[in-house]
Amino acid sequence: MTQSEERHQQRMEKKKAYVDAGIERASSDRGVLVVNTGDGKGKSSSAFGMATRALGHGMKVGVVQYIKGKIPTGEELFFRRFPEEISFHVMGEGFTWETQNRQRDIDNAEAGWAVAAALLQDSSVGLVILDELNIVLKLKYLDLDRVLRALEQRPEMQHVVITGRGAPPQLIEMADTVSSMEEVKHAYRIGIRAQPGVEL
Amino acid sequence: MTQSEERHQQRMEKKKAYVDAGIERASSDRGVLVVNTGDGKGKSSSAFGMATRALGHGMKVGVVQYIKGKIPTGEELFFRRFPEEISFHVMGEGFTWETQNRQRDIDNAEAGWAVAAALLQDSSVGLVILDELNIVLKLKYLDLDRVLRALEQRPEMQHVVITGRGAPPQLIEMADTVSSMEEVKHAYRIGIRAQPGVEL
Repeated sequence: MTQSEERHQQRMEKKKAYVDAGIERASSDRGVLVVNTGDGKGKSSSAFGMATRALGHGMKVGVVQYIKGKIPTGEELFFRRFPEEISFHVMGEGFTWETQNRQRDIDNAEAGWAVAAALLQDSSVGLVILDELNIVLKLKYLDLDRVLRALEQRPEMQHVVITGRGAPPQLIEMADTVSSMEEVKHAYRIGIRAQPGVEL
Repeated sequence: MTQSEERHQQRMEKKKAYVDAGIERASSDRGVLVVNTGDGKGKSSSAFGMATRALGHGMKVGVVQYIKGKIPTGEELFFRRFPEEISFHVMGEGFTWETQNRQRDIDNAEAGWAVAAALLQDSSVGLVILDELNIVLKLKYLDLDRVLRALEQRPEMQHVVITGRGAPPQLIEMADTVSSMEEVKHAYRIGIRAQPGVEL
């Protein structure tokens, strides 16, 4: 073994000891509340990637998509193939600036919440995705306290992911894992429209 | 209509005009290069969410996972159900601090690159996911110029997502869409270990 290879091995031995100690310390299991926020790409797609992980481990998944465009998304088309494993609920009739009617938006948000609340009481559902709920909360279409209470009272092993820009501070406070997706650059700004398989 | 409802409608009309103008400007279609970097959760899961979008639109997907733990991940277990639609390649034998052998890591990276390079020449593959490639590049296990050249020469409509901390500046420069997943908080830090359906 050369000197440089030996140094590499020593560094990696140290790193392994450090990582292993961290894993040892983190030893409890329970359902986690994940919040994906920020202005960059990746909030909803990350939630749907988690859905594939949950399905791979034989868990049941429930999805409520709150704000949605006119075109059916790829994730919806794909996940609807597995109705026994994942229930996929699309609420609303487009983005808030499409309806231009606050009362209709509130009614849609309430209808979506009824589905979400049922999922959050069903211990057979291992992962609940509330896609774009942050936007609904930011616009005050749903009462935040009611949402926080339902999250708190959910089954102990149930994971929840909530996505959307502008997550409320109280939700961030309650969450276990929070990522902020920051936009470094976006294809949209150089004239490339939303692409199937990427944004759609 | 009340005055407040009227104001809401006017604001939303303006917003719709602004959004529609933006969509009009962004009108070209081509394969985009997406890079997910940063220290927070969501880089790989976002790539796998994009895979569900691509599969939903009938596209073929190719995955090369470079750095991997000992336990098969949920996404691997799930996507292996659809071998006609998604080819899933897992390279390496664990994290770099597990092997503790630089030459073995380089050999693994090269083997993974051979698979990736073939995917990047196959125009029947609509989306290529190179999971944790950024780490491999950061450790200089692969030559960056070779990777950039292959990305540049790929089929025009092929999308690529590259994930991992510490994306090299030249890769960010070439990419169309770059998100940095920032850690606001992580369940790991309060003693909850990686959970199936969330991290695994």
